[in-house]
Amino acid sequence: MRAAQFFGKGDIRVVDVSKPVRKDGEVLIEIENCGVCGSDLAEFTMGPVAVPVPGRPHPLTGETLPVTMGHEFCGRVKEAPANSSLKEGQAVMVDPRIYCGSCTRCQSSATNNCHQFGFHGLSGGGGGFSEFVTVDEKMCYPLPDSVPLEYAALIEPLAVAWHAAKQADLPDFKGKTVLIIGGGPVGIAMVHCLKHFRADKVIVSEPTATRQAQNRTIADVVLDPITQSVPDECRALTKGVGVDVAFDCSGAQPGVDAAMDALRNRGLFINVAAKPIVPPFMHWILKEITLKCTLAYDDKDFGEVVNEFAKGSFNVKSMVTSRISLEDAPKAFSELVNKKDDHIKILISHKY
Amino acid sequence: MRAAQFFGKGDIRVVDVSKPVRKDGEVLIEIENCGVCGSDLAEFTMGPVAVPVPGRPHPLTGETLPVTMGHEFCGRVKEAPANSSLKEGQAVMVDPRIYCGSCTRCQSSATNNCHQFGFHGLSGGGGGFSEFVTVDEKMCYPLPDSVPLEYAALIEPLAVAWHAAKQADLPDFKGKTVLIIGGGPVGIAMVHCLKHFRADKVIVSEPTATRQAQNRTIADVVLDPITQSVPDECRALTKGVGVDVAFDCSGAQPGVDAAMDALRNRGLFINVAAKPIVPPFMHWILKEITLKCTLAYDDKDFGEVVNEFAKGSFNVKSMVTSRISLEDAPKAFSELVNKKDDHIKILISHKY
Repeated sequence: MRAAQFFGKGDIRVVDVSKPVRKDGEVLIEIENCGVCGSDLAEFTMGPVAVPVPGRPHPLTGETLPVTMGHEFCGRVKEAPANSSLKEGQAVMVDPRIYCGSCTRCQSSATNNCHQFGFHGLSGGGGGFSEFVTVDEKMCYPLPDSVPLEYAALIEPLAVAWHAAKQADLPDFKGKTVLIIGGGPVGIAMVHCLKHFRADKVIVSEPTATRQAQNRTIADVVLDPITQSVPDECRALTKGVGVDVAFDCSGAQPGVDAAMDALRNRGLFINVAAKPIVPPFMHWILKEITLKCTLAYDDKDFGEVVNEFAKGSFNVKSMVTSRISLEDAPKAFSELVNKKDDHIKILISHKY
Repeated sequence: MRAAQFFGKGDIRVVDVSKPVRKDGEVLIEIENCGVCGSDLAEFTMGPVAVPVPGRPHPLTGETLPVTMGHEFCGRVKEAPANSSLKEGQAVMVDPRIYCGSCTRCQSSATNNCHQFGFHGLSGGGGGFSEFVTVDEKMCYPLPDSVPLEYAALIEPLAVAWHAAKQADLPDFKGKTVLIIGGGPVGIAMVHCLKHFRADKVIVSEPTATRQAQNRTIADVVLDPITQSVPDECRALTKGVGVDVAFDCSGAQPGVDAAMDALRNRGLFINVAAKPIVPPFMHWILKEITLKCTLAYDDKDFGEVVNEFAKGSFNVKSMVTSRISLEDAPKAFSELVNKKDDHIKILISHKY
């Protein structure tokens, strides 16, 4: 079968690989759609970061690069275990995480903190930028016919945002003003989740025109950090107090600095971008801000987002700004590097 | 009267200044003892940091350097407002903070996050390295005769540790294993407070012999970060899981890195040292650690520590390793710079 594999920095090739063979407890899935994630892009531009390198295979897959990329994928069951409730043709969204299930963290349901944590599409084990993949049966979430498979891959970035929102440890966001730094795919997913959790006011800071426009359709306020002072605008919107929670979906230090400046005292900053940052110290100490960092999602998060997506809770179709054939997978990466402002989410499929 | 004033980096002089005159609502106090704090030392070695510089006076005191130093002080009332319950000769511990009382943060009792926050002894308004000081009546906590005034100044660093412990938002520390990085005055105060809050196991990482010895008398385990792997030892002490909460009282990046490594997943790191640090990213994200930064204490904290101190809850006498006359105040600073290992807390008084 055909697969887009990551060979190293700037080197993604569509190559022939063996079609995966289903093992006990696994499901063989024909992939329908797979989104390109910011972490895929990080591998492409700066990697290998998370992809295991020769000599240091991933402990659960045993693989090193080249690996088939793509972890935001849905598809249809081709073969399932004999006793499975999944039947051939069933549409499924896959939770692409790989965890051991037996360490103390997995046992306490913090599977996203597993000592051997990984992802299909980054750590080996096949990925979504191919025709077929085999995954553990328990990671397959059946989707009702009402769910359009051409958008279901967006469940994965929504699960990232869902987990990040839950890191605030709040019953909901009623009465809260939140700031999102970066209005890209994860930022937009954050807006959807925070609105779902009843946030009073969602403010997005985003410098590019396309993303600003898309955020304006869902957020309460969209700020341009190039021409506006994000902290001052946030204070003006909160009677001088500052925002309650800030989600950084940019990983850019100036965005982090602005978020920490915009927060109220004893506010909460959540690093969703999965990038190293330096907390600006005077804001941190003088306001006693709490800082969290969020990693993927757990089983519960994923199941909840699948349910909400199936109910139609997220109107996310406009996030998909391009669909590219598997054979042209490298083009998706160059588009996102060179024409970032034109895109939110690019989906790849061997069916295009 | 005589006062030790900070004129700039490395420049502390004992000079003649006017005896302060009590204003409405203030109490004139004759100082009994005043501790040298790490923040005083930071001003001496790297300042001015918190001390206001010419052209930028503190908004509440209106003062710039030179300022009389010292904010860990107790004394006896010399003059009080006519209607005050405080009478001449009453022993008092002073909460040395300066806050406006009227901003939204003060109004919500987060007086330590006041927009115009300051300290007697750093921001102007007189300080403890002198003979007399005037302070707001509400900042004076009467001490019963049973409290030895020669140790009461230790209430201030204990209040710092008390507030830091409360940042964990736990009912108490029962069943928790905690790690303290840095066994100096604040680290030792942390041990006392965490033991008071019923921590199961208190581990201290401290490189110097004198401080190790003192910590051994109160902590459960004392580690030497020069010869031992603090993270490995912490894991060995917690069945491989890691510590629940880490308090950094060192401000040293290698100590921060070790603390983040030693923490369990979803553990809590608290920056007590009041120093800028960089969260080691892989520990932060893979374990989804929460980071907090703590600043001084609020009214409630201070009152609670005074009460506990008066009850004799803290056996802290051995923390005082030297007492130095006000006339020799600069010597206290050079001792702490050049012979750090010989000292925990130095007290200064015009009565020595």
